[in-house]
Amino acid sequence: MSSSAFTHPFLSALLGDDETAGFFSVEADIAAMLGFERALANAEAAAGLVPVAAAERIGEVCTTFVPDMSALRAGTAKDGVVVPEFVRQLRSAVGKELESYVHFGATSQDVIDTGLMLRLQQVCRMFLGRLSGLDEGFERLQDQIGSHRMMGRTRMQAAMPISVEDRLRAWREPLQRHRQRLEQFAAEGFPVQLGGAVGNLDKLRDKGPVIRLAVASELGLADEPQWQSQRDRVAEFAGLLSLITGSLGKLGQDVALLAQSGGEIELSGGGGSSAMAHKQNPVGAEVLVSLARFNATQVSGLHHSLVHEQERSGAAWTLEWLILPQMVMAAGAALRIATELLTNIRSLGSQIHNS
Amino acid sequence: MSSSAFTHPFLSALLGDDETAGFFSVEADIAAMLGFERALANAEAAAGLVPVAAAERIGEVCTTFVPDMSALRAGTAKDGVVVPEFVRQLRSAVGKELESYVHFGATSQDVIDTGLMLRLQQVCRMFLGRLSGLDEGFERLQDQIGSHRMMGRTRMQAAMPISVEDRLRAWREPLQRHRQRLEQFAAEGFPVQLGGAVGNLDKLRDKGPVIRLAVASELGLADEPQWQSQRDRVAEFAGLLSLITGSLGKLGQDVALLAQSGGEIELSGGGGSSAMAHKQNPVGAEVLVSLARFNATQVSGLHHSLVHEQERSGAAWTLEWLILPQMVMAAGAALRIATELLTNIRSLGSQIHNS
Amino acid sequence: MSSSAFTHPFLSALLGDDETAGFFSVEADIAAMLGFERALANAEAAAGLVPVAAAERIGEVCTTFVPDMSALRAGTAKDGVVVPEFVRQLRSAVGKELESYVHFGATSQDVIDTGLMLRLQQVCRMFLGRLSGLDEGFERLQDQIGSHRMMGRTRMQAAMPISVEDRLRAWREPLQRHRQRLEQFAAEGFPVQLGGAVGNLDKLRDKGPVIRLAVASELGLADEPQWQSQRDRVAEFAGLLSLITGSLGKLGQDVALLAQSGGEIELSGGGGSSAMAHKQNPVGAEVLVSLARFNATQVSGLHHSLVHEQERSGAAWTLEWLILPQMVMAAGAALRIATELLTNIRSLGSQIHNS
Amino acid sequence: MSSSAFTHPFLSALLGDDETAGFFSVEADIAAMLGFERALANAEAAAGLVPVAAAERIGEVCTTFVPDMSALRAGTAKDGVVVPEFVRQLRSAVGKELESYVHFGATSQDVIDTGLMLRLQQVCRMFLGRLSGLDEGFERLQDQIGSHRMMGRTRMQAAMPISVEDRLRAWREPLQRHRQRLEQFAAEGFPVQLGGAVGNLDKLRDKGPVIRLAVASELGLADEPQWQSQRDRVAEFAGLLSLITGSLGKLGQDVALLAQSGGEIELSGGGGSSAMAHKQNPVGAEVLVSLARFNATQVSGLHHSLVHEQERSGAAWTLEWLILPQMVMAAGAALRIATELLTNIRSLGSQIHNS
Repeated sequence: MSSSAFTHPFLSALLGDDETAGFFSVEADIAAMLGFERALANAEAAAGLVPVAAAERIGEVCTTFVPDMSALRAGTAKDGVVVPEFVRQLRSAVGKELESYVHFGATSQDVIDTGLMLRLQQVCRMFLGRLSGLDEGFERLQDQIGSHRMMGRTRMQAAMPISVEDRLRAWREPLQRHRQRLEQFAAEGFPVQLGGAVGNLDKLRDKGPVIRLAVASELGLADEPQWQSQRDRVAEFAGLLSLITGSLGKLGQDVALLAQSGGEIELSGGGGSSAMAHKQNPVGAEVLVSLARFNATQVSGLHHSLVHEQERSGAAWTLEWLILPQMVMAAGAALRIATELLTNIRSLGSQIHNS
Repeated sequence: MSSSAFTHPFLSALLGDDETAGFFSVEADIAAMLGFERALANAEAAAGLVPVAAAERIGEVCTTFVPDMSALRAGTAKDGVVVPEFVRQLRSAVGKELESYVHFGATSQDVIDTGLMLRLQQVCRMFLGRLSGLDEGFERLQDQIGSHRMMGRTRMQAAMPISVEDRLRAWREPLQRHRQRLEQFAAEGFPVQLGGAVGNLDKLRDKGPVIRLAVASELGLADEPQWQSQRDRVAEFAGLLSLITGSLGKLGQDVALLAQSGGEIELSGGGGSSAMAHKQNPVGAEVLVSLARFNATQVSGLHHSLVHEQERSGAAWTLEWLILPQMVMAAGAALRIATELLTNIRSLGSQIHNS
Repeated sequence: MSSSAFTHPFLSALLGDDETAGFFSVEADIAAMLGFERALANAEAAAGLVPVAAAERIGEVCTTFVPDMSALRAGTAKDGVVVPEFVRQLRSAVGKELESYVHFGATSQDVIDTGLMLRLQQVCRMFLGRLSGLDEGFERLQDQIGSHRMMGRTRMQAAMPISVEDRLRAWREPLQRHRQRLEQFAAEGFPVQLGGAVGNLDKLRDKGPVIRLAVASELGLADEPQWQSQRDRVAEFAGLLSLITGSLGKLGQDVALLAQSGGEIELSGGGGSSAMAHKQNPVGAEVLVSLARFNATQVSGLHHSLVHEQERSGAAWTLEWLILPQMVMAAGAALRIATELLTNIRSLGSQIHNS
Repeated sequence: MSSSAFTHPFLSALLGDDETAGFFSVEADIAAMLGFERALANAEAAAGLVPVAAAERIGEVCTTFVPDMSALRAGTAKDGVVVPEFVRQLRSAVGKELESYVHFGATSQDVIDTGLMLRLQQVCRMFLGRLSGLDEGFERLQDQIGSHRMMGRTRMQAAMPISVEDRLRAWREPLQRHRQRLEQFAAEGFPVQLGGAVGNLDKLRDKGPVIRLAVASELGLADEPQWQSQRDRVAEFAGLLSLITGSLGKLGQDVALLAQSGGEIELSGGGGSSAMAHKQNPVGAEVLVSLARFNATQVSGLHHSLVHEQERSGAAWTLEWLILPQMVMAAGAALRIATELLTNIRSLGSQIHNS
């Protein structure tokens, strides 16, 4: 056990996912923050609010800047967010003369939330690829064994025979809908967050909207008015993550039940027991259930963080930090495991045609 | 206190909503079930699977049928679902000769889930109307006092002045997005459920799809292959209900905080205290927070019910019955209360222009 | 479907429990409130704060008082709690001369929370009786079939044979611990709540503690300083309710899995299907799982209500009303169903002694 | 953002707690597993089931054993638990001749769950110390400023003045009750888990109970029959963790509200803003609310894991791994932050005596 199974030295091999973890590493955090500050300076220079030389200097520094981690730690503990100390260090690296142009008119939430959107957009694309891969896996099984027959079960009881195709549809169709929703998220764009101290970009005077658009363009994000106290998109995305793990949890539960009954499914790659050499445990299938219930639990927390006080709630925002990255990790891990599980299904049902 | 505050003789006046409750009354349950059985018989008659006379007789009986409630109770306790006993009674009312055509080829879940979709569709339309009304309320406030100034607050601290318009946007925009999602739900249609015993409509032979389409058309639902073990749409709709209550919870929390600070808001219609005659409590605002946290709690349960075993899980399905109607009720109540609250805002911020 | 399955005309036969529901009826609410007001007046008379004649008159009125429900509804909607209007009506019934002695020095929360404790204490006793009955049921099975052999299963796979006694222990022991915790709750006593407007009983001057003790004694509750913003006991009791349903959910899940595998268990009283006459569904077992997941979902909400602002939070308190009674109902129903289920186990495992 | 804020390079300074994290490091995991295997071998040698030389050799190896981490990773991914590969490595280190005596008669769950109890016991002791420290902090404030007056607030409205003592009681008393519960946990002992493959210690023949007692004694744990599918103690402990964070969340919420109103509280050590130099944010107070809502969310997951199928559920067990350590971390962090917060309260209320 570790405080996070997703990043634990050995549990992460079971429950984590390296590719997904990459988007939430501290290096990715810092790269996203630097990307924001550079784009902001560029946009402000283009709008004439900041000297071009300042933007160039900031862009240059952002390319090589390595923060002092222990000072970031201390700053985060004190300020509740890393940005004030991060900006202090970045300003210091830029130098006295131009330092006032770093982070000009922005606030902590602009940096963190824009950085989050950058990462969620990348995650969204990766998950779309994985869902496509899964869909191909289902297609393959459909071609190979869709016509096989297996026992249909309702209320935990054998009911009447169905085709393997019937069961495959139940696993596959929800994932196709989740893919559509992810595509919709990708198309509408993950929005830049830029609002300044209390959300009205007061320091940018009449250039606010132009600068926000330019920052969004440079970062490949959608341009939208600031949304710092409107967390519905975050909660909705979290809901989608939990729908994905939930649908994969149904797959896992069904496979575990098939493995228990025996006979109808043959799996490769099962797990061993420290006490019984003869057992082949459907480990991946079970973990899919765990990850489904994990995200089903977490999604509640992000709905609580919708109650976000006033212009910016420290409490509700921090709650997101504690929960959202883990939900992404759980979804990444579940997609990885489900992909393996489909490959491990050697047979399902049988060719004997029940009438 | 009562086992359900939403239907409690006096608490429901605070926490319930009569119009919403109507969709989940036992009368509405039975009307929906009768509607399904009639539409099914008509569709099967049109497809030649059932004599036209049988469909006519069934339709006729459905118009006046009043079930024996105590037998429905006993049947539900025994079978875990009301349908077997309900169908038995309906068959008996139709008469020996034609009774075998009642519920022909269908299963319990077809009746219950189609009936649920019928109600959710109606709820969806009603909520769209209420959200429109709220949007007009915000528009009105915007016109009247959007230019007023109030203190912007971040992390529970006075930060810098903002306009009332800024705050109104934070309350209004998420609700506009929720309206769009509800419209999307309404447009894609709530789907009929028709699968028969194990989902493959085996008794309807090659007429399954035609009959399903006809049932859907008569009931005004979308036609889709059966989805009895695919509960993602239910969970997603529940998520949307919780987004609505969550966004209204932010409104409530903000109003309660404004009322606490005093000075910036004037409300009519506040509640009294049994101990202090001088107090005016922001009751509606607080209840919005309660309802937000209630649904944020519940949404988790419906994500757990995604882990729906095999062709039909009794456990996961029953869990939906325990939770979903209450989430609808909470959303209906929150929309009602928010509408009143907007009307009760007599003033917000002040005309004194802070620099 | 209904907004509350627990009180729904037919679903309640499956999911509710009449005896438990009795403690949360509106009649029980009002009886508890009248009991509080009478005990308060008596205590205040004994302490010399209220004329004896007033206490007598109040006690008399409380015996026969029938509130005007529609006015209670209206008052609750306005004040967020029924007490101000209830007290107004009670005062009116007591008459002009003595009406000021009704509810003297108390506040709404005193009435509602003391009334809740009265009911929880009764529920606690009833549940203790049901848990004893269950324990006897396990004892009986132990005597009859404890030595039978059945397959031990780990990770959803047959592992090695165990005795039925081994499995019975896994079901029984947690319930014995829950019984001990309930006994501990019963022994420490459910505390009276008496604090007045802001918790310091300011109106009772130096008689506060004496009066609180007398109220507690008359009502059979423990005497403790007011705890109106300290909701840990409520959350802990809710946790215990969810432990009970969770442990019964494991029983249900195991029985459903046994029923699925077939052969090892024989149950009477299973449910029918509207599509397949041959099926015997393990309805009670499944519902135990539903109720376990229901309470596991709800318990979260009561932990959120621990964040109870200042001297009294309307939002957090109202959240309790929405959730706690339902958790009690779910536990009552689960105890009822588990009792039936044990009786319905006709056989488990077999006498053939595996080596 | 990182997949776990508790162990993130800089966020952990805000949200984590080094001392608590130490109990859930991989080093602590391995030390606990080695401790179990050594104690088991010793107990089995004492009972004559294992040669004394084997127990000595195993004890010796356990002192210096350093596992091959990448093989542990691979094993965990395959088997769903680290133990089979861990035992394989340990056997290899012990050497061919005696390797069969390593882990003799035990199963994976015995190792992991006993290791968990060892850590929870240590955590319990540490938290008891921290709660004592907090209680002293409250005592100090009580002595210094208990007689000050402040505004009592109900339903987010100024009600009537109270003493600071009244408010301190509301913060302090629940924590005293949590301390008592922790002491009860510590006294009843965290139980050893020893059951073997399916829980009946079949390989230890009639020596099972004696060996289990000896293992418990060596490890300082309570001796109890195996409980591998009885997870109520885990869920109850988790509930207590969430009661602690919830009660501290009330403290945090109250302090944040005091800080917002201004005037009644003076805090040192507040956080800075990247946009507004003049602000002093009550960061610690807000984080207490976040941690309370985090644990209130998580506790639900551990109640779901009570539905633990058969002799051992992979799915429910893995869910615990994902959630429980984080709840411990959140409680550790909240205790740390609350201790700092109390120290930072420079003043509360005022000496002006309101009548």
